Amino acid sequence: MTSRLLVRCLTVSMDGFGAGPDQSLDNPLGVRGPEMMEWLLKTRSFHHMLGKDGGETGIDNEMAEEGFRNVGANIMGRNMFGPIRGPWPDEEWKGWWGEDPPYHTPTYVLTHYVRAPVHMKGGTTFIFATEGIQATLEQAKAAAKGRDVRLGGGVSTVRQYLEARLIDELHLAVRPVLLGKGEKLFDGIDLLALGYEVAKSVQGERAMHVFLRKRPATATK
Amino acid sequence: MTSRLLVRCLTVSMDGFGAGPDQSLDNPLGVRGPEMMEWLLKTRSFHHMLGKDGGETGIDNEMAEEGFRNVGANIMGRNMFGPIRGPWPDEEWKGWWGEDPPYHTPTYVLTHYVRAPVHMKGGTTFIFATEGIQATLEQAKAAAKGRDVRLGGGVSTVRQYLEARLIDELHLAVRPVLLGKGEKLFDGIDLLALGYEVAKSVQGERAMHVFLRKRPATATK
Repeated sequence: MTSRLLVRCLTVSMDGFGAGPDQSLDNPLGVRGPEMMEWLLKTRSFHHMLGKDGGETGIDNEMAEEGFRNVGANIMGRNMFGPIRGPWPDEEWKGWWGEDPPYHTPTYVLTHYVRAPVHMKGGTTFIFATEGIQATLEQAKAAAKGRDVRLGGGVSTVRQYLEARLIDELHLAVRPVLLGKGEKLFDGIDLLALGYEVAKSVQGERAMHVFLRKRPATATK
Repeated sequence: MTSRLLVRCLTVSMDGFGAGPDQSLDNPLGVRGPEMMEWLLKTRSFHHMLGKDGGETGIDNEMAEEGFRNVGANIMGRNMFGPIRGPWPDEEWKGWWGEDPPYHTPTYVLTHYVRAPVHMKGGTTFIFATEGIQATLEQAKAAAKGRDVRLGGGVSTVRQYLEARLIDELHLAVRPVLLGKGEKLFDGIDLLALGYEVAKSVQGERAMHVFLRKRPATATK
């Protein structure tokens, strides 16, 4: 099996924003982040991820579960890893997620600043990748050993990989929430021209789930 | 009852476009328009509007029916009325809809070019309104006699009324369709800053229906 690059469970507001504005240490998801993510936070799958019982089953839960299937490596932008900008001041910051992050795989953090890998509980290793999106993808695919690579975000990282046509499939959860401002996911990006199409869509309890797929090149290979 | 200005059944693609690109005489809804409007075209309500039997019932159908309730007058932009631009060459063009348009009320067409009203079958009268969006709204409200005024579109007309905070409620049908290009409904518009909020949302069979409402002014009146 070839390893694919997938975006999973990326939440988009109905006015087109892929993340809440004003991300901070107190508000890692940005303003209105929790309202955006409500479809996920209520699921059994998410409860389970936090080591808790309970949570709702149904379509949103199925979509969340599907998001974690067959993932062999993760990639994320630096802003998703934490609020620190510029060179790393020390080794202290190890992500938003505590000692046992929900990744359990090699997890590449795109950054311009070198830092030694950090091994966490549960199999997550944060690897600070400074060689750009394409080289990092190649390393992540090698590390995934045939499983898929999940691209977590944030918005600007997804946009970079999209524009480079490196994403094979995106699962977007479109939420009936207004953000008003923030980072627009598709501004200036023509997804049709980039070769994407709607592969399927499912109406969940709290979100409309849309799967975009890169059309295979009309190739002779 | 005070007459309100309502947008109903306005279809938005998941990438933010409110109308298909390249509208023309052959393609009044623009390229991919029929794919966008599929949620509506399949409903019993729409079949009924065309004088046909059949069509599907369900949530999308209920949403479509709600869109025609209590409408006493209509407003539309000129491009929605037809493909002619500039001064009216003659009296020949009477809309896309044949002899009996689905409006059945006074219907104001915003234009810069004077033209005498056109009386159609079924109670639709097209009135060519040259005095701007605000004055036209006042005339339409007077003509609606206590019922609501429905703003049909297109995108640039809705944007003008939105930015002037003249719309009381918008029902948007968000479709899992990619348009890639066209007219973006909310580009550069911060709906929260304009005072809108999500009043309710409903997952239909083929669209996510979102109702935006202008928050009442924190007023003493």
